[in-house]
Parts: sequence; structure tokens; C-alpha cells
Amino acid sequence: MASGLTHLDARGQAHMVDIGDKAVTRRRAVAEATVLATRETITALVEGSGNKGDALATARIAGIMAAKKTSELIPLCHPLALSKVTIDIDPLVDGSGLHVTAGAETTGQTGVEMEALTAASVAALTLYDMGKAMDRAMTITDLRLAEKSGGKSGDYRRTP
Amino acid sequence: MASGLTHLDARGQAHMVDIGDKAVTRRRAVAEATVLATRETITALVEGSGNKGDALATARIAGIMAAKKTSELIPLCHPLALSKVTIDIDPLVDGSGLHVTAGAETTGQTGVEMEALTAASVAALTLYDMGKAMDRAMTITDLRLAEKSGGKSGDYRRTP
Amino acid sequence: MASGLTHLDARGQAHMVDIGDKAVTRRRAVAEATVLATRETITALVEGSGNKGDALATARIAGIMAAKKTSELIPLCHPLALSKVTIDIDPLVDGSGLHVTAGAETTGQTGVEMEALTAASVAALTLYDMGKAMDRAMTITDLRLAEKSGGKSGDYRRTP
Amino acid sequence: MASGLTHLDARGQAHMVDIGDKAVTRRRAVAEATVLATRETITALVEGSGNKGDALATARIAGIMAAKKTSELIPLCHPLALSKVTIDIDPLVDGSGLHVTAGAETTGQTGVEMEALTAASVAALTLYDMGKAMDRAMTITDLRLAEKSGGKSGDYRRTP
Amino acid sequence: MASGLTHLDARGQAHMVDIGDKAVTRRRAVAEATVLATRETITALVEGSGNKGDALATARIAGIMAAKKTSELIPLCHPLALSKVTIDIDPLVDGSGLHVTAGAETTGQTGVEMEALTAASVAALTLYDMGKAMDRAMTITDLRLAEKSGGKSGDYRRTP
Amino acid sequence: MASGLTHLDARGQAHMVDIGDKAVTRRRAVAEATVLATRETITALVEGSGNKGDALATARIAGIMAAKKTSELIPLCHPLALSKVTIDIDPLVDGSGLHVTAGAETTGQTGVEMEALTAASVAALTLYDMGKAMDRAMTITDLRLAEKSGGKSGDYRRTP
Repeated sequence: MASGLTHLDARGQAHMVDIGDKAVTRRRAVAEATVLATRETITALVEGSGNKGDALATARIAGIMAAKKTSELIPLCHPLALSKVTIDIDPLVDGSGLHVTAGAETTGQTGVEMEALTAASVAALTLYDMGKAMDRAMTITDLRLAEKSGGKSGDYRRTP
Repeated sequence: MASGLTHLDARGQAHMVDIGDKAVTRRRAVAEATVLATRETITALVEGSGNKGDALATARIAGIMAAKKTSELIPLCHPLALSKVTIDIDPLVDGSGLHVTAGAETTGQTGVEMEALTAASVAALTLYDMGKAMDRAMTITDLRLAEKSGGKSGDYRRTP
Repeated sequence: MASGLTHLDARGQAHMVDIGDKAVTRRRAVAEATVLATRETITALVEGSGNKGDALATARIAGIMAAKKTSELIPLCHPLALSKVTIDIDPLVDGSGLHVTAGAETTGQTGVEMEALTAASVAALTLYDMGKAMDRAMTITDLRLAEKSGGKSGDYRRTP
Repeated sequence: MASGLTHLDARGQAHMVDIGDKAVTRRRAVAEATVLATRETITALVEGSGNKGDALATARIAGIMAAKKTSELIPLCHPLALSKVTIDIDPLVDGSGLHVTAGAETTGQTGVEMEALTAASVAALTLYDMGKAMDRAMTITDLRLAEKSGGKSGDYRRTP
Repeated sequence: MASGLTHLDARGQAHMVDIGDKAVTRRRAVAEATVLATRETITALVEGSGNKGDALATARIAGIMAAKKTSELIPLCHPLALSKVTIDIDPLVDGSGLHVTAGAETTGQTGVEMEALTAASVAALTLYDMGKAMDRAMTITDLRLAEKSGGKSGDYRRTP
Repeated sequence: MASGLTHLDARGQAHMVDIGDKAVTRRRAVAEATVLATRETITALVEGSGNKGDALATARIAGIMAAKKTSELIPLCHPLALSKVTIDIDPLVDGSGLHVTAGAETTGQTGVEMEALTAASVAALTLYDMGKAMDRAMTITDLRLAEKSGGKSGDYRRTP
């Protein structure tokens, strides 16, 4: 392994690592992202949903569908059969942004962190797409793993 | 249009907006993202490339291929024929992270901001994927549009 | 051409027909489908939207995204850049079903009937997916072209 | 659950439901669709196959490949590994149309109704695509589940 | 440009080259491949078509659909709208194999060599897939460009 | 079965064969391909990697990602969850070409020959894409199975 990176072999070449001997266990991950925008844009996105329109639903669906495309997007990710995906989008208390939470689960030989992160990322990008005509400066920040469980490396929970 | 959002119609329903009457012009966008990680992880990613391995190349290829998948990922994005895509990944001066820059161009009726943002996002997620065994707390931040040109809405350059 | 079918060559072999000499014109198509279900299921789908949930939004997004996948699904369809896609879902007056209308547009060398039909079909299948736990007998019927315009073969409007 | 729909959570938001605790069993589904067209078009499609050409083979292949894309098309469908897919296309006795039957099987935690329905739908749309130059009024009707087996909800067979 | 390769920039990094200033012209390419197999396997594939079955039709459809996926498969290929794709499969005179010819056309800013080669390659792999139970040693050989026209680099025709 | 081909049913129709009763075992396959080109092109590809650039890394990533797309490309292939994929690219001793070796593994009910062959094929095509501006006559040859293990049909190793 070159440089401590598991995805590179002894010659430094990228490969999809062998998970054939890993245990089949229930694995779960939660990722998060924050979308910062003008107050007006946040209001439009939140109001443009519920009984007013499809805005947040569109981002949720985009995130769920993206989770299923993770192994097509991230070159060295193993394909896996997700057993559950959820996306929650909530306004920040101070009205300055939207918080995206993506949960993913599988029963398999490898974790679902990348699936949760990809889902959160694409849900956030979809919010950008819908709001960009109002605010081109919208920024996605703090896209990261919130927690994971299952697998040999043990559970992880982000310390705030 | 509900709530000022162009992607919702008068009933608040999501639709792919009509661009059939927009001018065909050369359109360009640059997006950026920053991947924060431990110094050890950044070093491994940077060293695990050049003559040491495929790490940054893998992220660049992932970003370029993701740009071409944008309209499959972002529900209301129009499909378009990209004429150019570039990804640059550079270490931050203080060694605390990697800066991803994604450029996209097309000649068409709609802008390529989402293509640049999707490319930057997936390149950053690929860096996370390769580094996550060393540092689960890696965070993607400041994923945003840096500049755009072409189209009726005029040029945009992010103010630092 | 074998048997009058434009998609088969003189030997009867499938091919993607040459559209390189066709005129670039604005082309539009509208397709429709009807989803029949129990009154209780229709009510759940309609109520499970607007301010109650994402049901119809999910079907609309599915239809729009499917329109963009048409040339991946229908073997001999040409890839094309859709400039507009809309999906409308309305309850039948007698409460026995939902009527799906899908509109698609492009400026190009071939028509968008298949894109509109694929969008209507996948929106209807998504309604089935969400309602199937309540009513396995749900049926999709009258999936067909409602109208088209643009192109050499002239305009078409279904006679009721 | 909002409105009795399993695909919406308590807040009415779409999610991919958790199947992680469901039993792994052999699951099978058969779906059907009917394509109505002018007698001349039906004859061309049927003759444009067998020793005359690829027409029905093209529709069969399209249906089989679409079955594998189901979870990309239907937003809340779980990805699953199909162990068998078949498509049969037979002329109606009275010559007024073609009957499409799609069978799908898996060994897993969720059923394959959507895979069978998607396969039948895309096979039928492919027939439309090949016949549309002869008959734009071709209609797909009675797209529905014929039978299913496996899983907790028990077997189902459509009553004629 | 590093090492004379147009797909690498001055730093040796892969990028999708800028075609935005290239002329829009009619571009055409023909690729070929040969599938060598036992006489028995070749006979089965050829007989398992025409009025005996779908074998060659399946390979033709696979090749046509693969041509449309070229820019998803080849990382630095530009997406483009194919206006025509054909696949021909003919037995070698001496019965030792099958010859695959793939033709592709577009009107655009870049050539379609990769589309023709990808189509020929996937048609050949599909023949392998169908014949492999009879002959695991089947070999695909001479996968190459036969001719191209259109674009600044001029016409090309392989010298036999 | 028509003509001894397992992928055709008794009527000669293509179908995805039933693997539901096959044993779940560890399955492995290695495929190979050779890319012949001018000495200058081979040198550029090899030098345009390591510390000079991304050329071989791009081909390796393309091959790995293509392995995951096999069931989308080869119509009658079953979808399966790859547990490992590797691509090695080495210059021929005489400098006349590059040798591509692709390895794939899964634990499942069907073999991974097609995944290994597809990976080798797309890695080779990506080398062609990067070298074609220098040498349009580049040829891919000897694309074939090198070895396989696992499954009822027993192990296979190509005799040189």
C-alpha cells in the first residue's frame, strides 16, 4: 500500500479493494451538509414545499436516487444493495440555511458512508439548483459523516 | 411561479423549465470545494499521486465523469453537451486541506454551473473515499460557484 | 426496409436510423396515461401530497428524470437534448384514477414522442409503486401520444 | 405514515423504506401489457422478426435491460440482483394487438413487481417506437401485475 | 501537453479537451472487430438468429446501445448526439469467426471513432457472453478503426 | 434451448437465464487484452503516467468503473456485487504494445468473466482514446479470458 491509502496497491495504482473476506453485517451511516443562502432564498425553498410546491421533495428524491448511484460516481466504491435511505431537510434555527441529513443502511461486506455522503451532497446541490436564480452565492458547507455503525472498524459518532 | 423559484410552476409543481427560446452562447462556469483533513491524510493523498500513485488522478477522473452525469443526478437540470471539463486539486498553503477547482464549458442554451459544482463535489467525495480509512472526520466545505460567464444573466465572479 | 418498419434495414436488422439530413426544428410532444386504482388508493396518493406529503411530487420527478433516460431505455432512439419537460397528474372526475400528462420539447432533428411516452409511463409506474401496498390490482391504461408538432411528418392530435 | 402510503414517513416525506429486517426469500412476479395498433402495424412487427428481422427481439432485449434499470427509474425502489428475466410477446388472437408478458425473479428482501412492470412497459414502448411511423395512435393498455409470489404479503394472482 | 498526449495538460493531468472552437461538421466512423471461436460455436450463434432465434440481434442491439454510452465509459470522451448507428455481423468465409462492423455518425464538434469502437467492442463481448458456455477460449481480435471522415484531421481509411 | 446457446429459450428467444438455484460461491476471473501501437505512442502513454501524468491511471479507473457497468452493457448478464476489481497495464517486452490484465471477484450465483472482459476492453479503449491523435491505427487484440475459478463449470486457465 502506497502512502497509507487503502485504495492504492503496492505500486501506487488505484484498485477496488478486496472485501470478499469481510463479514456480512448490518451497516448504517448518517451524513450531513449545510446549505447557506440568503434569508429570502431559504424562505422560498421552504415555502416552495409543503402545500406550496415541490421544492424540498425534489431535493429529497434527488438525494435518495443519488445514493443508489454512488458506486457509479465514486470510482473505487463497491456496488451494494441499500436496504434503506432517508433524507431530512430542516431550516437552521437562525434562518441562514438548510441542514440536510442523509441516512443509509445495508446488510453487506462494506460500509455505506459514501452512499450517505453522496445522498447529502446531491440533495444539497439540488437545493442550489432550485435557488441559484435568486442567489448565486449559495454555499454548501460541512458536508461530512455524522455517524456510522457496523463493520470491523467500529462505530463512529462525530464529536460536535 | 411559486415562491420566486423558477423550477416550480404556478401550482408549485416541479418542472424542467423551457429553455427553447434562450440564445445559444458559449457558457463557462468554475466551481470550487475544499476538503479538510488531518495533515497526515493530506500528505498521503498528495504523495499517493505523481510518481507515487493514482490518488489525485482518481479524483480528477471522477470529477470529470461526474460532470457528464449532472443531468442524471440533478432532477431539473437540462442535458447538455459539455465541450470542456477540467479539475485541479491543489494543497492549501497551510497543509490543512486540498482545494478542488472544476471548470466546465458548453455552447448551448443553458449554463453549466451545476456541471462544475457536481464535478467539484464528486472529486471531493472521491478524496474522502480514499482518505476515510485514515480520517473519518474529513470535511468538505465551501462547495460553491467561483465564477460564470455567458447567458442572459450576465457574468458572475465570487467576491472573496 | 423490411415489413414497412423504418427501424429495420433491408436485411431486417435493427439499426438507429440516419437523421443527419433532417431539419433542425422545434419539436414538441404530449403523452398521457391513466392509472386506475381503488378510490381509497387514489385518495391516499392525492392527499399524500400538497401539504400532506411527497406522493405526487415523487411521481412528477420520476417522470421528468425518465424523460432524460429515454435513449438509454429504447434501443433505437436517438439521444437528444430536451429543452423542457413537464408532468401533470390530476384525479379523474369520477375518482377512479389519476390522469398523467407528460410534455416534452427539443430543438433538433428528431421528435420527442418517445420522451413524452417514457415520462408518462415512469410517472405512472411510480404511482403504482407507492400505491401497490394498498392495491396490487392498480392498472395503467391508455398510455399513448396525445399530440405532437414539428418535423416533416406534420402535426398530430389524437382524436378523442 | 401519511395517508396509508408506506413510502411516506410520518411527516409525509418520501423515503426508501427499511427492508433490512425482511426475510430473504425467493420472489417472483409476472406483469403484462397490451399494445393495440392497426392490423397492418401488428403484422409488420410480427413479420419483422423471426426470419424477417429483429423487431420483436429488439423489444425483448429492451424489456430485459430495463428490468435491470428499475431502481434507477422508480425513485423509492430498492436496488436488487435479478436472478432471471423473461419477456414474451404474442399476437392477440384477433390480430388487434400484441400481448407482452414479463417475468422477473430474485432471492432477496423485497419483491420484483416493479421490475416486471418496468420490463413490460419498456418492451411495449419499444414496440411503439418501431411501429409509430405506421400508426401514431398505437396505445399501451392493461399494464398491470399478473401474479407474484414470495414475501410476507403472500401470493397474488390477478382475477381475470 | 505532457508526452504528446492531447488528453493530458502541461502538468500531465487528465482533462476533457476544449472542443468549443472546433467546427460543427458531419462526422462518420467505422470500426471493426473479429470474434474467433470454434466452428460449432459460430454455427450456433449464426443459426441462433434469423428464424432460429435472437442471438445476432441481441449483439446488434447491445452494440447500438453501447454506442450511446460511450461518454459514460471512456473518461475523457465528450458527450455527443449520435445521428446514426449500425452494426453488421457476418461470418468469416472460412467459418472460424464472426466479423463485427460498427458505423456511427454525428453532426458536431468532435469525431465518433470512440463511439464506433465501443459499439463494436460491446457487440463482440455480447457474442462472447452468448457463446461462452460452449467455448471459453473465444477471442476478440483486431478491434480497430476501419475508416473515419469529417473534422480537421482529415479522412482516414485503414490500409489492409 | 435453440442451437446449444444457453441464452436462448426453446423458441430461440433471448432471456436472462435463471440462476436462482445455483450455489453461492466465491468466483474469480481474469481477462486480458493487448493494445498495439507505434513505439512513440506506447512511450507517450507510459511516460504520460507515473510522475509525468495521468495516462495509465485514467485507463485503470475507466476499466474499474466499466466492470461495475457490465450488466448495463451486456444485455443478458445478471447484475452482481463485485467484491474486488484490479487493472494492470504493462508494456510488452518488445515495446510494441501494452498488455492489460483485469481481475474481478464476487461471492454469488454467477461468474464474473464478463466483468473482467468488459473491464479489460474499456481500459484498452481508453488507451486508444488517449493515443489516437498520435496513431489512429492502434489495434486491440487478444481480448480474452485468461482464467476463472468458482462455480459448477470448474476452473479454467487459458493454455498459452
